[in-house]
Amino acid sequence: MLAAILGAGAGGGFPQWNSNAPACRRARAGDPSARPRTQASVAVSGDGASWVLLNASPDLRQQIEANDFLRPRTCLRSTPLAAVVLTGGDVDAIAGLLVLRERQPFTIFAAPRVLAVLDVNPIFEVLARDVVVREPVELDADIRLPGGLTLQLFAVPGKVPLYLERPGELPAIAEDGNTVGACVTDDAGKTLFFVPGCAAMTPTLAKRLRGAHAVLFDGTLWHDDEMIRAGIGQKTGRRMGHMSLDGPDGTLAAFAGIPVRRKILIHMNNSNPVLLDDSAEHAQVRAMGWDVGYDGMRIEL
Amino acid sequence: MLAAILGAGAGGGFPQWNSNAPACRRARAGDPSARPRTQASVAVSGDGASWVLLNASPDLRQQIEANDFLRPRTCLRSTPLAAVVLTGGDVDAIAGLLVLRERQPFTIFAAPRVLAVLDVNPIFEVLARDVVVREPVELDADIRLPGGLTLQLFAVPGKVPLYLERPGELPAIAEDGNTVGACVTDDAGKTLFFVPGCAAMTPTLAKRLRGAHAVLFDGTLWHDDEMIRAGIGQKTGRRMGHMSLDGPDGTLAAFAGIPVRRKILIHMNNSNPVLLDDSAEHAQVRAMGWDVGYDGMRIEL
Repeated sequence: MLAAILGAGAGGGFPQWNSNAPACRRARAGDPSARPRTQASVAVSGDGASWVLLNASPDLRQQIEANDFLRPRTCLRSTPLAAVVLTGGDVDAIAGLLVLRERQPFTIFAAPRVLAVLDVNPIFEVLARDVVVREPVELDADIRLPGGLTLQLFAVPGKVPLYLERPGELPAIAEDGNTVGACVTDDAGKTLFFVPGCAAMTPTLAKRLRGAHAVLFDGTLWHDDEMIRAGIGQKTGRRMGHMSLDGPDGTLAAFAGIPVRRKILIHMNNSNPVLLDDSAEHAQVRAMGWDVGYDGMRIEL
Repeated sequence: MLAAILGAGAGGGFPQWNSNAPACRRARAGDPSARPRTQASVAVSGDGASWVLLNASPDLRQQIEANDFLRPRTCLRSTPLAAVVLTGGDVDAIAGLLVLRERQPFTIFAAPRVLAVLDVNPIFEVLARDVVVREPVELDADIRLPGGLTLQLFAVPGKVPLYLERPGELPAIAEDGNTVGACVTDDAGKTLFFVPGCAAMTPTLAKRLRGAHAVLFDGTLWHDDEMIRAGIGQKTGRRMGHMSLDGPDGTLAAFAGIPVRRKILIHMNNSNPVLLDDSAEHAQVRAMGWDVGYDGMRIEL
């Protein structure tokens, strides 16, 4: 299996359009230790010819042009993109579908609850349904993807998309299929997990990840309250449906007991110091066996 | 007045994600005569500090980072963008609003019919209504914009957005406010017109444009049937709501009788040969007094 990180940033990317925080200023100034990240998306392929996207980020047009294996190579109009798998209905997971207009056939695979988000937004009808198939995927079922891969979607602890939250009401964290992870397996049995949003590590999830060849996991925040501390937001990570890296309930601690061949952070918020190659936090996650994902990173399993 | 073209391409941009046509291949190869174009958007300012966007293209995140005057300069979170004016409800005019999330205050100015498109798509609720004001603009009324500019929206011949068309039904071309043009005037009386989509030149429109200091006008297609001829589409320009440049009913002929100080083509489709600096068509429009818009082009009035 071949995989490539098209974007390793969280919603908004790095730098974020309206952030003047020191890290974003470093990224804009071209500091080589503060490499920009577009919004989270991964491309996978079983045969090196047909590619499947895991989430369609708002930066998809830029991401296709930055990765030559995703550019058209035959006829006047074509694409190596055969399918898009969606793990959630938030803007940073689905807005890139709007890039894929122009009556180009491909298949969207997603849980019914995520497809329902597309259904209630008529703007996604630019992907004409006679050309772009919307394939509902049951959780925990094996689904054959183009190019020799098998997909399984599974529930992870999460919350409803931001724009479906009700004012004044705290969204519940539940394993109800609003947020899912994706497991992609090739015909040689190699497995890659893509879990860009996860509110907590549960015994079920830990068991599922055990022995994986690669796990690309939610690296949104370092501290649960880092956006509040930095004065750039009122929400904790938990409130946003993301566990944080640090701390006794954090991702780093949780993975210490889960044997996994490759652990890669993805979906990092612009406030997360692991984005800075010269930070203590970056050094710490590297020392604990993690890679910090970056745009253009290739993974060969 | 200061203006900058953030993107000069039509929907899909240049190169287009799934186009392997010769011009797109040249753009991808870095040919200096086939400069890439992101999707159409213009920034205007009366004071050089507050900026107003004319349309929010899907490429807006990339466009903000490419134009330093649009980046945040103060506090931890801020933006020089004070407002967004929308001239239509198609994906290439509105999808960039999804980039402007993160509870950053600004105002959206648009005709009620375009605001209705946002209203029926809950995904745009990421722009929380208590932070981002949606201001309905009556056609032909003077509206004060931030930074010392005045806006007037006016109906131009056009059709409904693509994803609101009904299958099997030809959309009517009408001056009904589904497509509008924008006229921006500064306090010194300088006028800039932005008309990225226009299905025909009418006497009313010609009269309105007369004497303008700058007109940025629909340059989508060269020939009405160029997409059919090139084998990349089944639709004429007319069917898509765009008049073409060439021919007796074309834009070049229509403007021959309209005195305008600066004429600039914008919203050019990847199939339009004027995008190629070494084409005969490019030379012809230049000889007729037009500029061919490009990303990063500055206009000072």
